[in-house]
Amino acid sequence: MKSDVILLGHGSGGKLSHQLLDDLIVPILSGIATRDQNDAAVLHHDGGRLAFTTDSYVVDPIFFPGGNIGDLAINGTVNDLAMTGARPLAISVGLILEEGLPLADLKAILEAMRAAADLAGVAIVTGDTKVVPRGKGDRIFINTSGIGVFDHPLEIRGSGARPGDKILINGTLGDHGMAVLASREGLALESDIRSDSAPLNHLVADILAAAGGAVHALRDPTRGGVATTLKEIALQSGVDITLQESALPVGEAVAGACAILGLDPLFVANEGKLLAVVAPEAAEEILALMRRRPEGREAAIIGEVGAVSAGKVYMATAIGGRRAIEMLAGEQLPRIC
Amino acid sequence: MKSDVILLGHGSGGKLSHQLLDDLIVPILSGIATRDQNDAAVLHHDGGRLAFTTDSYVVDPIFFPGGNIGDLAINGTVNDLAMTGARPLAISVGLILEEGLPLADLKAILEAMRAAADLAGVAIVTGDTKVVPRGKGDRIFINTSGIGVFDHPLEIRGSGARPGDKILINGTLGDHGMAVLASREGLALESDIRSDSAPLNHLVADILAAAGGAVHALRDPTRGGVATTLKEIALQSGVDITLQESALPVGEAVAGACAILGLDPLFVANEGKLLAVVAPEAAEEILALMRRRPEGREAAIIGEVGAVSAGKVYMATAIGGRRAIEMLAGEQLPRIC
Repeated sequence: MKSDVILLGHGSGGKLSHQLLDDLIVPILSGIATRDQNDAAVLHHDGGRLAFTTDSYVVDPIFFPGGNIGDLAINGTVNDLAMTGARPLAISVGLILEEGLPLADLKAILEAMRAAADLAGVAIVTGDTKVVPRGKGDRIFINTSGIGVFDHPLEIRGSGARPGDKILINGTLGDHGMAVLASREGLALESDIRSDSAPLNHLVADILAAAGGAVHALRDPTRGGVATTLKEIALQSGVDITLQESALPVGEAVAGACAILGLDPLFVANEGKLLAVVAPEAAEEILALMRRRPEGREAAIIGEVGAVSAGKVYMATAIGGRRAIEMLAGEQLPRIC
Repeated sequence: MKSDVILLGHGSGGKLSHQLLDDLIVPILSGIATRDQNDAAVLHHDGGRLAFTTDSYVVDPIFFPGGNIGDLAINGTVNDLAMTGARPLAISVGLILEEGLPLADLKAILEAMRAAADLAGVAIVTGDTKVVPRGKGDRIFINTSGIGVFDHPLEIRGSGARPGDKILINGTLGDHGMAVLASREGLALESDIRSDSAPLNHLVADILAAAGGAVHALRDPTRGGVATTLKEIALQSGVDITLQESALPVGEAVAGACAILGLDPLFVANEGKLLAVVAPEAAEEILALMRRRPEGREAAIIGEVGAVSAGKVYMATAIGGRRAIEMLAGEQLPRIC
């Protein structure tokens, strides 16, 4: 049964989010029936290309092990630009502050934004600040939008995966989501798990410089996790994807916490990870290159693209079985970003 | 005494907002001590210029006479781009939805956004949707960010006002703020006052095409109203500005409502108005041009730039006196946009 009001699950990044976007938001706002599911729009202007993206951050709690809402908001938008192959040029910051927010908290968040922008090498060029009365917000929400430019003619899209391609990830699954959840719930496991929040633009630049032509798709598996993101790529490209369960890198603390809580790290959000779909002959070179950078130390080849198809994702299990992977349904972890 | 938490007044667009920006937000985020107070940033890239701006909309109520939060969010960002002389190219939409928002309300808001974008001739190209739990937001907040491009070499800045320039406005003061306030408070005067929410990019394009070189500054007097915006221009340009009280266009219903409520329309927000600071010899031509468009029918010359100075704004009163005008202090009307 369809709801006639907004549900928490509409924000999950999974099936309900897709329905809301496909049935209501995108047809009305864009005037087109199906949306381009890439992380950023690519605009053509004056003979050149620009990438443009936006994200609002409503993470709860606003401070968590490994970061806070501020650096998350910069990294997320930097990464959305990077996933199109663009170099982040400029970022805007829109703050919605709840009356009563301690200025010390605001200061810490702004400082984290600045440090993240410096690390990514992107300028914060414009902003806006609104205040809502106590009880009409939740301390702080941040929107960041970003403009990226292209230093190369490569066109990298979610629809670029081809049969035979390898799927790489630059490290372990689920760290961000589990760090936020553990912090929110005050779980004892909190101290062991840190968000992976990080800018990925330098890693992408390295990969494109070394083997750009072999990179067929890039996507950062945030809300909905690796499973949902791969399902999106499979659907957009019209191919099957098969993951190797034994190849998925998952940290010990995250694996333990997921087991206790009945969560699958495959569906848990990441904020410093990218999935790269690359030509098979370049996979080892790109893997080695990833591993040379701190944000890619635990990179792995986790699967491959099968035949042209309707967009199925399968898991080849450790014991030799195979099961279908679907998008996240409903809301596994609300307000993870 | 300075507060150590966020107050509603920090969102007013007036003195407290300026303090928060100048003391905390801008130094940290931008790394520069004083900010460029223009409505949009102008970026230089690849030999060309881009305008980039962002605004979050938290207006309460979300539906009001003359518009809703959706068209407001499009018009506001279109106008911020237009005030730099740019042509709006693309807009992003970031939605923060509160659990329980009726989908019918969301649909009406999205349709208003689409209609406003069509009217302005700008494409909505990318977006993001988040959901927060009941009681952690207020139905819907919208961020729009925009990219503009320049079809001419003119540089239009808040610092461009020169002694002798004339100040024009394209219509009556305070309609948006009073429409929102009346609607929020359920005042009987509600039916007579409609928001002036409108895109100003076509009007600006007409003015620049006809007399671009004579246009020294453009600014839309939103939060803080005409008084605060002129004070900003006076400070940035280092000039005095004198307004003629008798020349200020104020609608009858707005004037009446302001009188009853003890508000000054000079400080009340507008969402379809611009202040143009122009060379005196072009003032009549630009006035006539404004009046030919529906959004400029009630345009008027309301003042002029005096000497180079520290940035004072004066009101020449109807009875021959003169008083200083300051920025809005504190919060006159919360959540007006």
